[in-house]
Amino acid sequence: MFAVEVRDHVMIAHSLPSPVFGPAQGMHGATFVVDAAFFTADIDAHGLVVDIGLATEALTAALAPLRYRNLDEVPEFAGKFTTTEFLCRFVFDALAAAARGGGLGDGGRLRRIRIMLHESHVARAWYEADL
Amino acid sequence: MFAVEVRDHVMIAHSLPSPVFGPAQGMHGATFVVDAAFFTADIDAHGLVVDIGLATEALTAALAPLRYRNLDEVPEFAGKFTTTEFLCRFVFDALAAAARGGGLGDGGRLRRIRIMLHESHVARAWYEADL
Amino acid sequence: MFAVEVRDHVMIAHSLPSPVFGPAQGMHGATFVVDAAFFTADIDAHGLVVDIGLATEALTAALAPLRYRNLDEVPEFAGKFTTTEFLCRFVFDALAAAARGGGLGDGGRLRRIRIMLHESHVARAWYEADL
Amino acid sequence: MFAVEVRDHVMIAHSLPSPVFGPAQGMHGATFVVDAAFFTADIDAHGLVVDIGLATEALTAALAPLRYRNLDEVPEFAGKFTTTEFLCRFVFDALAAAARGGGLGDGGRLRRIRIMLHESHVARAWYEADL
Amino acid sequence: MFAVEVRDHVMIAHSLPSPVFGPAQGMHGATFVVDAAFFTADIDAHGLVVDIGLATEALTAALAPLRYRNLDEVPEFAGKFTTTEFLCRFVFDALAAAARGGGLGDGGRLRRIRIMLHESHVARAWYEADL
Amino acid sequence: MFAVEVRDHVMIAHSLPSPVFGPAQGMHGATFVVDAAFFTADIDAHGLVVDIGLATEALTAALAPLRYRNLDEVPEFAGKFTTTEFLCRFVFDALAAAARGGGLGDGGRLRRIRIMLHESHVARAWYEADL
Repeated sequence: MFAVEVRDHVMIAHSLPSPVFGPAQGMHGATFVVDAAFFTADIDAHGLVVDIGLATEALTAALAPLRYRNLDEVPEFAGKFTTTEFLCRFVFDALAAAARGGGLGDGGRLRRIRIMLHESHVARAWYEADL
Repeated sequence: MFAVEVRDHVMIAHSLPSPVFGPAQGMHGATFVVDAAFFTADIDAHGLVVDIGLATEALTAALAPLRYRNLDEVPEFAGKFTTTEFLCRFVFDALAAAARGGGLGDGGRLRRIRIMLHESHVARAWYEADL
Repeated sequence: MFAVEVRDHVMIAHSLPSPVFGPAQGMHGATFVVDAAFFTADIDAHGLVVDIGLATEALTAALAPLRYRNLDEVPEFAGKFTTTEFLCRFVFDALAAAARGGGLGDGGRLRRIRIMLHESHVARAWYEADL
Repeated sequence: MFAVEVRDHVMIAHSLPSPVFGPAQGMHGATFVVDAAFFTADIDAHGLVVDIGLATEALTAALAPLRYRNLDEVPEFAGKFTTTEFLCRFVFDALAAAARGGGLGDGGRLRRIRIMLHESHVARAWYEADL
Repeated sequence: MFAVEVRDHVMIAHSLPSPVFGPAQGMHGATFVVDAAFFTADIDAHGLVVDIGLATEALTAALAPLRYRNLDEVPEFAGKFTTTEFLCRFVFDALAAAARGGGLGDGGRLRRIRIMLHESHVARAWYEADL
Repeated sequence: MFAVEVRDHVMIAHSLPSPVFGPAQGMHGATFVVDAAFFTADIDAHGLVVDIGLATEALTAALAPLRYRNLDEVPEFAGKFTTTEFLCRFVFDALAAAARGGGLGDGGRLRRIRIMLHESHVARAWYEADL
């Protein structure tokens, strides 16, 4: 299996309103450094998994709804706990939709995507699944 | 598959008494920066793979037998080569036991654990297995 | 000149209400990975710049007013833009006060402190000054 | 599954002569920081996945045809696009051959190899396959 | 002293045609991850050392003559050895000129600039000077 | 001021026999990732601060007395606390002697050296002085 991974980041605010989250219940925030990995069984005639320019643009587009936002005010997230894990899945779904819509220019070769959010130097989460 | 990974470190001394280890046969030591990754098929009602506080505490507890120790004097390791790989498995076993004992509070959702020990900027090892 | 540097982190929310800040005017947030460096002209009889345990505790204490907070609601910051640079100085002042109060146990040997806040993989700020 | 990973790097020039590569069509270059991971089902009697000295030497040998080279002038690469992905496979093939030839001293225990090339702080690629 | 540092990267080819450079005499290349640090004595009324957007744009502009280039073909570098150190100074000069020309919007507050080029995980160079 | 920095590492055992060191009093160890930075006022006719090959060899030679050693058994360190800070100075002294002895081939241009030892992902120390 081949993979290409690109990196971007977002800075968000949110609250996690349940006693489960202890000191993180109130309004706070995070920088998420985001790695998006794209997997294919083989490389194409140009030696590529995916066009890295398209991959980077697709990641930027997937992160746009989060960038400099208070996630508590994003209608799509109403009633959800916007944990790091949850957001991994959110970004995955956006990139999977982009892939299915042809936005990654791969002609159906993409097999799997992994989205990793680094929330600090000591914690990170990821979601990985086949397309 | 979802995952959450937390980081801690230990500083240990040990010897690796076999010619196989060349210059590392005698008493020397290492800082191991340790990443523990926990995998689940899905996130729970709070959007979590695992409570990150519990995961961090469980990792700290798993590393306690190693912290600031001379591993040559740890009875549990007698007759063993305490290589980086061996210690990955040792930490894995401790966290797997914690998971089975309910110490990670996951109600049986955890599917897999991966333990990675970074021994320098140019070498690391890991052990990954299903629970 | 000798130095010892320790690392911790905080996750905060804030807004930066001026057109100067463009997309960062509204409520968003950040993870700040914080490095605190302590400088002395020489090491003491135990070979130390500063007790690393005390340094780490002092940094944790200095960061407590920020941890998991919405900085817009912190009275001390009313009317201030809580930029990364501003927060570097805030943490510096707290550690300088700790040093002057004996909380770093150095008996007056500390000459300088540098506080660096990493806000992402592509941006960071610091403040460094003599005590 | 156990793994051991070692790191080295090479600095190369190449061109990517197709409009697909946009600004990278002409002669430019890259530093590739290369991670080679070796996987086994279990550790051996010395607690090892693979002798880390042999692994490091094998990686150095696998990278020798690339080191300080203009890849456009390497006969083996004639007519190929020497993308990061392509080079992952090239290094994989060299290490797989080394493993099959006994150069990793593992007596047939090696199950899988993963080669990762970091081309910058925001992009990397890898190839991973069973032996 | 306050500082803000931003990061970008370029991928270049060049040769270093002197026996002094040993295996690097021929055409090869590098990824340079570039950190540009800007220093001021104090922060401004918005709590800033420098507008981070302007700083990032200025760094991108300073790197434009290098991006995806064969430095052996850049007229400005004719007869020069385009070492990492030399390029640190080249980027410094471009940013110093930008600062003097008002491109960093600082109204003359900038005191010093430091340009650091990371050429691999084990080597880097920098140039730092007052404006 | 120009600088070039190279990286290597050592793995050592030692004890720190004073109550000051709390849990680190007994035999334990560390990986020290070591950065050696060399400073000159200007670059030479080849565009260099220092020959990076010589710098790397000099660092390796300076670290040789520490590599895979139990520092409690090194006669030179008898009666000393081999703290990270102390070792920064030890490596500095070795490289300063190498510089004065011509081993860095600089013909007297070197002005300053900084030695940084990273002991974990959250702690490091350095010593920096003019030659």
